[in-house]
Amino acid sequence: MEYADFLDESYEPSDDDLVCTFRLVPGEGISVADAAARVASESSNGTWAALSPESDVRQYSALACDIGPEDEHGTQVTVAYPSGLFEDGSLPQILSCIAGNIMGMKAVETIRLLDCEWPAVIARSFPGPQYGSDVRTELLDAGDRPPLATVPKPKVGLSTEEHVSVAESAWRGGVDLLKDDENLTDQTFNPFEQRVADSFAARDRLEEETGERKDYLVNITAETDEMVRRAEFVDDHGGSFVMVDIITCGWSGLQTVRRRTEDLDLAIHAHRAMHAAFDRLPQHGVSMRCLAQFARLAGVDHIHTGTAGLGKLENEDTAGINEWLRSDLHGHSDVLPVASGGLHPGIVDQLLDALGTNVMVQAGGGIHGHPDGTEAGARALRAAVDAYADGESLDSRAESVPALRTALDEWGTQNPR
Amino acid sequence: MEYADFLDESYEPSDDDLVCTFRLVPGEGISVADAAARVASESSNGTWAALSPESDVRQYSALACDIGPEDEHGTQVTVAYPSGLFEDGSLPQILSCIAGNIMGMKAVETIRLLDCEWPAVIARSFPGPQYGSDVRTELLDAGDRPPLATVPKPKVGLSTEEHVSVAESAWRGGVDLLKDDENLTDQTFNPFEQRVADSFAARDRLEEETGERKDYLVNITAETDEMVRRAEFVDDHGGSFVMVDIITCGWSGLQTVRRRTEDLDLAIHAHRAMHAAFDRLPQHGVSMRCLAQFARLAGVDHIHTGTAGLGKLENEDTAGINEWLRSDLHGHSDVLPVASGGLHPGIVDQLLDALGTNVMVQAGGGIHGHPDGTEAGARALRAAVDAYADGESLDSRAESVPALRTALDEWGTQNPR
Repeated sequence: MEYADFLDESYEPSDDDLVCTFRLVPGEGISVADAAARVASESSNGTWAALSPESDVRQYSALACDIGPEDEHGTQVTVAYPSGLFEDGSLPQILSCIAGNIMGMKAVETIRLLDCEWPAVIARSFPGPQYGSDVRTELLDAGDRPPLATVPKPKVGLSTEEHVSVAESAWRGGVDLLKDDENLTDQTFNPFEQRVADSFAARDRLEEETGERKDYLVNITAETDEMVRRAEFVDDHGGSFVMVDIITCGWSGLQTVRRRTEDLDLAIHAHRAMHAAFDRLPQHGVSMRCLAQFARLAGVDHIHTGTAGLGKLENEDTAGINEWLRSDLHGHSDVLPVASGGLHPGIVDQLLDALGTNVMVQAGGGIHGHPDGTEAGARALRAAVDAYADGESLDSRAESVPALRTALDEWGTQNPR
Repeated sequence: MEYADFLDESYEPSDDDLVCTFRLVPGEGISVADAAARVASESSNGTWAALSPESDVRQYSALACDIGPEDEHGTQVTVAYPSGLFEDGSLPQILSCIAGNIMGMKAVETIRLLDCEWPAVIARSFPGPQYGSDVRTELLDAGDRPPLATVPKPKVGLSTEEHVSVAESAWRGGVDLLKDDENLTDQTFNPFEQRVADSFAARDRLEEETGERKDYLVNITAETDEMVRRAEFVDDHGGSFVMVDIITCGWSGLQTVRRRTEDLDLAIHAHRAMHAAFDRLPQHGVSMRCLAQFARLAGVDHIHTGTAGLGKLENEDTAGINEWLRSDLHGHSDVLPVASGGLHPGIVDQLLDALGTNVMVQAGGGIHGHPDGTEAGARALRAAVDAYADGESLDSRAESVPALRTALDEWGTQNPR
């Protein structure tokens, strides 16, 4: 097999092929066509030395089958992978092919995995989400409005008592979900078990007080056995959600959590901290769109996909990714997108104009930084979201909700940086 | 707390601080000092809204404590993190701080985590490697020469019977370790259990025949429970090594495998497929040096660190990383670096000149692509390595080893691309 054997622009991908779109800049002295063939070769079963195996290994070879168009970041290349190349239901194995050694080979200067089309035979080997956006009504009382979540701030350093006190105020003000931040797990200042036990005790009180279901996105991120143990602890205390830092924990651990949450009926909230290490620069790495696809296959119920350019974090195509998350994927549930990072009541209408209402809205500083404190901040955000769902302007709703008026006066309609 | 509270250039990191060096380019309209403060803030416990918590959360705040020098890829910024910010022994939690949201925040245009200095209190909360380079003599008969490993090629598509046949030839020719490639796990054409059982049966025969210890780096990468089950299967069949695709599997899964391999006395071979998605571009992401540090803490015994610019893959500072892997880390074992990717006998002397002999040498095409086949290819590579260890030139050794002469004539001293 020669590298050129991995290029066939006349090839039409079959229904069973995994079809990946890359964007690449070839290495020095290498043509785009040669680089495309090298991608297909290195990510399936090529090697640099000429070999003549006896068995028909070609049936497991990928084929670069389309080249172009080109833009400032490189040339698009489409590669079709036969499904027999992949182990059933193993994200790590798929990634070791389609986003593995090729990311570092000299035959390309830069390369980015842009998009994947998943055949049924691969997609159905994964569990997919247990709830998806059905969490809105199955586990919460959000109805048609975006569910609201909040992280107590500062995100680490509060004592358990302070954490619970902030949670109570937020739930009372109208937030549905308390949420841990990505780096709060089990530290001495706010230990996991105490936090979970005390938070759910408070949750029970606030459900009674408000008449609304309230819950808690508990960050269980850890070594896998410990992560599963923490999921069971959440379940034992009446929680319906766990949160996992899916990138820093990794796909093997997430897939294990997904197996256990099936038995426990827990929804998985996917935080994406570290995604920008490989998806931020447009010419290289793996796109957020693909990461969201992997997460849906693995079976998360919510995933952070950004704020459509609002807020404090860079985002890539939030609207397009959110649309993919609710598109058909061989019968799998959808995933509820989460918008988070520098949000506050004054930009809720811009956010929902861009993304629609099938989205979870998470605010931290935009609730707790309210001049009148967390409860008022929660009331302001809830009023903003309710107003949007009712087709009323924020300023109009603010006439009957003083906390919203105060928030709009404090933060206006600007993005924090 | 304001962002500026996270910058203090007069601060001297304490012995308990985790000290991280970043290189960044600030976002538009933001000074380097402001960007440095934002990094410290977002990666510990800052938020964009002004808050006045009652408890002393400052003790968990990071501090940007040094700025500069600057180069073409940005300005170096040193950030000191108090150890109390971190959960003991959890790589995902540490990464969610030091390589999490900051990678995507608008306050920086690009940011790269370059290096970490690990305090004892954090380093000792991890197990570290069980063997490190002691695998050379404890589990193998490599003595002072580099242990040799080979992946049968094509890396996927061979039947189990062909796989074992290639393995036998490689072991017979002088290779110590059979190795699966990163994308061979449990596919129908070569199922995991059959492959392991048949390979170790052949291994036992070849140990008898050659009088040398031979072993097999079995790729157990999968969902975590399955990965542990596969490790146990390897142990049951007399193997002493498992291989994990540590990036595509992730840190939670790897840490779980490390716990189980402690009981089973198995060494862990770390493949790094996908690392280049976030370490290839010099201005952004996470350096390979840091990745190697995380892997050592987690407890891998070998890790791929490249070929010092030789071969077919791009490498970043192979020699410097390898030196770090054998430097003192609060009493933890060292890690044996692995050189792999387009290597063949003709460049062994250049490779070992650059990296020394405390390295595992892995060749695929550079063995199986030998004109006289795998056994001759293995004999040639072994002769090249033995010659180097003996201080003899390759050409001189080739006079008594025809297979080496043939390899040198076939491939010369050039790098494949």
